[in-house]
Amino acid sequence: MLEERLISLKRELIEYATLVESMIDKTNIGLLEKKKELLLEVIDKDEPTTDRYELEIDEKCVNIIAQFQPMAVDLRTIIMILEINRDLERIGDLSATMARSNLTLIEKPQVKPYIDLPRMSAIVQSMVKDSVRSFIENDDKLARETFQRDKIVNALRDQIVRELLTFMASDYKTIERSFCLISLALDLERIGDHSTNICEDVVYIVEGEVIKHQNENIKKKNK
Amino acid sequence: MLEERLISLKRELIEYATLVESMIDKTNIGLLEKKKELLLEVIDKDEPTTDRYELEIDEKCVNIIAQFQPMAVDLRTIIMILEINRDLERIGDLSATMARSNLTLIEKPQVKPYIDLPRMSAIVQSMVKDSVRSFIENDDKLARETFQRDKIVNALRDQIVRELLTFMASDYKTIERSFCLISLALDLERIGDHSTNICEDVVYIVEGEVIKHQNENIKKKNK
Repeated sequence: MLEERLISLKRELIEYATLVESMIDKTNIGLLEKKKELLLEVIDKDEPTTDRYELEIDEKCVNIIAQFQPMAVDLRTIIMILEINRDLERIGDLSATMARSNLTLIEKPQVKPYIDLPRMSAIVQSMVKDSVRSFIENDDKLARETFQRDKIVNALRDQIVRELLTFMASDYKTIERSFCLISLALDLERIGDHSTNICEDVVYIVEGEVIKHQNENIKKKNK
Repeated sequence: MLEERLISLKRELIEYATLVESMIDKTNIGLLEKKKELLLEVIDKDEPTTDRYELEIDEKCVNIIAQFQPMAVDLRTIIMILEINRDLERIGDLSATMARSNLTLIEKPQVKPYIDLPRMSAIVQSMVKDSVRSFIENDDKLARETFQRDKIVNALRDQIVRELLTFMASDYKTIERSFCLISLALDLERIGDHSTNICEDVVYIVEGEVIKHQNENIKKKNK
């Protein structure tokens, strides 16, 4: 039955999102506590698993459409699963990129205490979790609330970039490490963007309202 | 008829891609020739147009699936149009981000002659064009060839980042402008990534072979 297949697909999507959240978490803890093994786990074990999830979910979505020819809401739901699937794969990919960069960082002296980066990491992790939850539970309020967190993420990114550019200016020996940290902030911001994509789609599906390009307006103001 | 609707949808996708390519081009020329009006055109006129394209194409895809219940290849094609649509919207968004950053850059003294950035811009522009063309013409060879260009894009990004970090180290007064230029290189690289997404899907649709995660392996090696 279509309904059963959709429930099973949503369950798989939750598992996938949980894996991806854990990757962001491990990448962050790996940096803070200099735990190389956590970073290697993200790179060698988790990322290949996300690749398998993506291909599998994609295949299942197409098969369900072909087999059941769903209409209206069900069709929109499956197309959204396809898009969330893509977003989760990108988030996994970004986490692995950060983990690779952290492997280098933990071998070198720390430029500064990490305060804003872990905060940013925790927020985007919560955004991944809640954006997928808002989809599963059809919860447009949660989607809107999660979407709002992207403003904090953008503000933190600006703060981190500004602070590290100052560090670079005051001590040229920190330039390479500072740039690594800036890249982390930019990658976290991209993860936040992927989560807001999901939220925008949830609001569209539940309320029929397009908030997609409101978000870009927020981004513009932040630039 | 389904076939006619698909042809018209593909035509619209080509128009959309052409607009997006022109945005990358104007953003680049705007920087090189300090043409403020070109940058403002991208921000004020082109970006809102990409938003309209995205919503319209998305709506049409869902309607076609619901109305014609296409199977197999046609269904895959429509799902790909949905994904290309998303990629093009992101590329438009990235171009507008670069245009905004260039507005600031052209008001300040130039850090260095721009050589690699325009090269990178020309390559990613060709990647956008050819990735969409490979989809429209079902040309897996073109898709594979376009996909390969991403290696050059990544190499140019590395070169630009390295060079500008050296500039920053030698003269702290250039740090802010150098960082702007690095951000441009990172944004261009993301545009390259969106194009390779499209190529990967074309190869999958035409040959049934998954090259998606080969690309990530290339990226890993480049890091």
